[in-house]
Amino acid sequence: MPEKMKAAVFRGEKDIHIEEVPVPEAGPGEAIVRTTLTTICGTDSHIWRKEYPVREGRIVGHEPAGVIHELGVGVSGYQIGDRVVVGAITPCGACFYCMNGQWAQCAGYDNKWEPIGGWRLGNSMDGAQAEYFRVPYAQANLARIPDGLSEEDVLLVTDIASTGISGAESAGVSIGDTVVVYAQGPIGLCAAAGAKLMGASLVIGVDGLDYRLEMAKKMGADVVINYRAQDPVAEVKRLTEGRGADVAIEALGKQETFENSLRSVRPGGIVSSLGVYAGKLEVPLEPFIYGIGDVKVVSTLCPGGKERLRRLMEMVKHGRLNLRQLLTHRFRLEQIEEAYDLFSNQRDNVFKVAITP
Amino acid sequence: MPEKMKAAVFRGEKDIHIEEVPVPEAGPGEAIVRTTLTTICGTDSHIWRKEYPVREGRIVGHEPAGVIHELGVGVSGYQIGDRVVVGAITPCGACFYCMNGQWAQCAGYDNKWEPIGGWRLGNSMDGAQAEYFRVPYAQANLARIPDGLSEEDVLLVTDIASTGISGAESAGVSIGDTVVVYAQGPIGLCAAAGAKLMGASLVIGVDGLDYRLEMAKKMGADVVINYRAQDPVAEVKRLTEGRGADVAIEALGKQETFENSLRSVRPGGIVSSLGVYAGKLEVPLEPFIYGIGDVKVVSTLCPGGKERLRRLMEMVKHGRLNLRQLLTHRFRLEQIEEAYDLFSNQRDNVFKVAITP
Amino acid sequence: MPEKMKAAVFRGEKDIHIEEVPVPEAGPGEAIVRTTLTTICGTDSHIWRKEYPVREGRIVGHEPAGVIHELGVGVSGYQIGDRVVVGAITPCGACFYCMNGQWAQCAGYDNKWEPIGGWRLGNSMDGAQAEYFRVPYAQANLARIPDGLSEEDVLLVTDIASTGISGAESAGVSIGDTVVVYAQGPIGLCAAAGAKLMGASLVIGVDGLDYRLEMAKKMGADVVINYRAQDPVAEVKRLTEGRGADVAIEALGKQETFENSLRSVRPGGIVSSLGVYAGKLEVPLEPFIYGIGDVKVVSTLCPGGKERLRRLMEMVKHGRLNLRQLLTHRFRLEQIEEAYDLFSNQRDNVFKVAITP
Amino acid sequence: MPEKMKAAVFRGEKDIHIEEVPVPEAGPGEAIVRTTLTTICGTDSHIWRKEYPVREGRIVGHEPAGVIHELGVGVSGYQIGDRVVVGAITPCGACFYCMNGQWAQCAGYDNKWEPIGGWRLGNSMDGAQAEYFRVPYAQANLARIPDGLSEEDVLLVTDIASTGISGAESAGVSIGDTVVVYAQGPIGLCAAAGAKLMGASLVIGVDGLDYRLEMAKKMGADVVINYRAQDPVAEVKRLTEGRGADVAIEALGKQETFENSLRSVRPGGIVSSLGVYAGKLEVPLEPFIYGIGDVKVVSTLCPGGKERLRRLMEMVKHGRLNLRQLLTHRFRLEQIEEAYDLFSNQRDNVFKVAITP
Repeated sequence: MPEKMKAAVFRGEKDIHIEEVPVPEAGPGEAIVRTTLTTICGTDSHIWRKEYPVREGRIVGHEPAGVIHELGVGVSGYQIGDRVVVGAITPCGACFYCMNGQWAQCAGYDNKWEPIGGWRLGNSMDGAQAEYFRVPYAQANLARIPDGLSEEDVLLVTDIASTGISGAESAGVSIGDTVVVYAQGPIGLCAAAGAKLMGASLVIGVDGLDYRLEMAKKMGADVVINYRAQDPVAEVKRLTEGRGADVAIEALGKQETFENSLRSVRPGGIVSSLGVYAGKLEVPLEPFIYGIGDVKVVSTLCPGGKERLRRLMEMVKHGRLNLRQLLTHRFRLEQIEEAYDLFSNQRDNVFKVAITP
Repeated sequence: MPEKMKAAVFRGEKDIHIEEVPVPEAGPGEAIVRTTLTTICGTDSHIWRKEYPVREGRIVGHEPAGVIHELGVGVSGYQIGDRVVVGAITPCGACFYCMNGQWAQCAGYDNKWEPIGGWRLGNSMDGAQAEYFRVPYAQANLARIPDGLSEEDVLLVTDIASTGISGAESAGVSIGDTVVVYAQGPIGLCAAAGAKLMGASLVIGVDGLDYRLEMAKKMGADVVINYRAQDPVAEVKRLTEGRGADVAIEALGKQETFENSLRSVRPGGIVSSLGVYAGKLEVPLEPFIYGIGDVKVVSTLCPGGKERLRRLMEMVKHGRLNLRQLLTHRFRLEQIEEAYDLFSNQRDNVFKVAITP
Repeated sequence: MPEKMKAAVFRGEKDIHIEEVPVPEAGPGEAIVRTTLTTICGTDSHIWRKEYPVREGRIVGHEPAGVIHELGVGVSGYQIGDRVVVGAITPCGACFYCMNGQWAQCAGYDNKWEPIGGWRLGNSMDGAQAEYFRVPYAQANLARIPDGLSEEDVLLVTDIASTGISGAESAGVSIGDTVVVYAQGPIGLCAAAGAKLMGASLVIGVDGLDYRLEMAKKMGADVVINYRAQDPVAEVKRLTEGRGADVAIEALGKQETFENSLRSVRPGGIVSSLGVYAGKLEVPLEPFIYGIGDVKVVSTLCPGGKERLRRLMEMVKHGRLNLRQLLTHRFRLEQIEEAYDLFSNQRDNVFKVAITP
Repeated sequence: MPEKMKAAVFRGEKDIHIEEVPVPEAGPGEAIVRTTLTTICGTDSHIWRKEYPVREGRIVGHEPAGVIHELGVGVSGYQIGDRVVVGAITPCGACFYCMNGQWAQCAGYDNKWEPIGGWRLGNSMDGAQAEYFRVPYAQANLARIPDGLSEEDVLLVTDIASTGISGAESAGVSIGDTVVVYAQGPIGLCAAAGAKLMGASLVIGVDGLDYRLEMAKKMGADVVINYRAQDPVAEVKRLTEGRGADVAIEALGKQETFENSLRSVRPGGIVSSLGVYAGKLEVPLEPFIYGIGDVKVVSTLCPGGKERLRRLMEMVKHGRLNLRQLLTHRFRLEQIEEAYDLFSNQRDNVFKVAITP
């Protein structure tokens, strides 16, 4: 039994590096997972830039696949050695928020709500860019990987696929809808995939980078718009007999894309907001256009829990969703500094990096 | 058969007065209704103030009860003399918007969409503050008044009850929800009634005028807050174990009430916006609080069509909804100038005025 | 600390009597509650009659209020002495069924599904007609009683109120619906209350006993029909312009009431089935009437978990729901045989019995 | 202008033949369409066999594509010569049922409800297996064929695609669901396609004929089961870790497939019934298994109206749905007797026949 392990620790601005730390131990209801594959999220880049606060010394990372190494008291139905994924959101399943179906806001057994309190790994507790990590509320969060699927196949269900697809789900995409997705980074790509999976007849992907628009076509977009070359709002209207899209999904978190989303939807349409906004948001209104035209604005965080992960892995297993193609770069855990630098600066047409301990 | 009638005509700022004009005639699919009772809407006051544009010479008004006077070719199942109400929104039932269930945005048979195009009476065609008015798409819009109910009982289903209650419906109020309603004018009062009718356990009404808070208790609020005396956001949190309301309904259309609504809902809550905003709206965000906390913002316009009106009249008939108590003042059509002055300046604790031709 | 307690134990047909048994102890994640009030359910009567199988020696009962006596390892946020209710369904919050929102089917941590496996107390484990009882998955199931409410006020949220109201919820009752409820026993009465709480304009209660129809008027019905005096289907049609009700709720579990429910709904209506059927059910179809007329048939079991209980207690607290009036008879635990006899034989116009240890 | 036309007229059992009849004329709100392509439905075969009653002399057929030939008074926004499809259901858009979203039950302007009254063509009025046909409520029912699509591409949106897909919609198929479809005739094939389009991870098609199972794989099924070789219920359970499918769609209308559907779904699952049952239906229940295990049974008829048709044609246009492959045989209108014989007896591996006037 190892006592020490390597882990990526946040120490300050642009300083996440490998340290040797104790292997965690499982308390009641918890599990320890030996990480076999993990990745870096846009949120981790915010931590790295010191734009999102975590305490110094925190092990970062929240998108892991691995093998069960230890099971705490009271966890049932699992075996040491089971291959699992654990989501970015680790809900308790038993608090006010979980029992209202809002797992990302999980307040936990101790009922202490914090913003997106369901995001614990690499945020309010140590995370998964490490050789081992501790899983809170393990009974609700250990999702077995189906036979025949590799860790690379399923890794991205842990956050971006779940979040992106939930953008389409929250908008209630219906058979025959036109859906435009603003920004084709990893989450926007998954939102486009989600819109297609739910029955959109036309999915439009918007971005300013051609390599992203190329990937958009592989992930779900029927039509792509490079906003540097074309006015996306005008183009969406042109494609919809002048009406606008039924649904716009915002996957960036900027005033401009939010406004474009509002302007792209038809009267009575829905804007689904996945982006993380850094400041105040303005809702542009023509004077006395009466409300915002029956428009709904829904924001969504990553749904959580093992059943969500199981469903998404089923989608991968039956060929509905190819997430592996987004793992464009590979690193060993020891190379974590290089990985953060490449990913955070979006170099070399990176989508997501695969990190192996 | 009369050839001339009295009608309230818009002629310029603060100039709506009675003129003698021809009685309208019914084209195919239309009906002529002889008005027996009507009222003035907040929107009419905007027209009166020249804040909302209608063309000079327009007969105003969109909340009528009356008696069928003439039926155009192709209208079936009605008799001359039937007592009816007609809603503010007169959907065609057959266009893209109607067939997607968004009647307020009705583009009509000629498929010419305009903002809230479903609002025709007293807006894009002559209205109902007149002895007679023309009903477009009559088949979809003539709603018979049940026996035993008076025009006064049901008049307000035509707009404010439908709009206000839809604010609760759009939010999907559930058994056991806490709902706060900002502003207790006629629409906010109906929103509070709607929240209670849908199963809210606690309805909180907020306003700055005591006579409105008094009426709020009669219409649906369990608790009222005068924002001049108490911080409504703090009070809502106090009443909900610190979490915030499940639903906030905004029924005024100001930046402040919109912000208070956002701040009053719990994580994962819903803001239902009924107000008519006159300018840009700012969505306040703490930097990096990740989206807007899973919050949904839904805006709603008045649903339309005779089936909606039938359902609301059933609510009145079976004692679920007392709208008559909002008719605080009575005028004859000839007194329309006096009525506009009193209602638009909110004098004498007026809620709604009843106007009889 | 007591070591022995009195409990109602099933020993055979019509043989449930008090025995002295050990006080249970709390394992990890569990709690022990000292019972202060409990009641007998129709299902308990089936056990008493040996129509529903539980093993000999089982302590029965699943509708308790009490005081927390002991908390197992890992249960957080509660204090010894807290007043609580625990529902008939005690979901784990973390299995496939719970995470799909179907708590009554909870398979538990060990993932062993059985029909309505979420019903554990007095079924698959010892129950609550005893001085103390053990609460599985305590974190998800201990619901604090709000200050100001007595055990008598809230006792019936644990099963019949939750089940009955869910019959209206599953049917999606909307503003202005007509709802007919077949059978006005405790669950049917709560279904009628639920339909009214969700916005039905007209609630029709059907039964054959006048004292039940009297109570129906107090609980939610606008109109009552004694099927011995009137054909309920014809009467429902008469009250709905010949169409039929929008929703019918079946709360008995007989072929006849099921058929009457199907025949009472309008085309496109919904039958919500709460009854427990003892044999095959026949769906009557006129030859080639094309399906069953767009009708939906939904069946519902009691939703579970502390958040459901919290919401229902809020309804009681704010005067929306009067459950106390159904507690028509009172017994001490020692009188349990007398209580079973009275309740199971529906003597003396009993609705529910209150049992105090 | 022709005065006479050829039409397929029902004259008695197995007697539908071509007669020369007057070309119909358009009344107010109606249109005349010159048929360019039509087909035979299973329901037409029931008429042919005299199992479903239509009056003698009725022109049959309800699945047409064509060209607008005449527009009645009050129809707006169309041109003579526009290429259109018209659905099997021709709702008025303005009655109780239409305004509650249940178009198949449309009672029409004259408010005379009959079972599936929304089905008018070839049922309660003359139909579309003719050179010309009359379209009631034309404003709501003329759906323009998008440029670039042929009549063969879109013909089957008029009934089977809409009906089949609605089977998946009514069941609320979600991302990651397992869906089993019983019977892979044209409607079952479209139901399988619909389940896949809505995000099912695994679609299982069941039939007894290998050529149908072959087509099932092309239309949407991931796995097919020939019930002559395998027990479909056992196989569904094996594919779902013993639980059963989330959704079963019944597309035949037999007691056996209905029972298999009920037995194939997991606790809390949904059975969506599309079949047309000829007699009483038995719902098998194990004694006291408490209701039917939280199962919902939803039945669905073909949704109607031009917007539904538009949405489905968009699906075809963007390559989501290949309906043309089901047109396995071609006939001229004059060969209608041969076409009925082949289709009604399911000879030569026929799925659907294309009939050209």
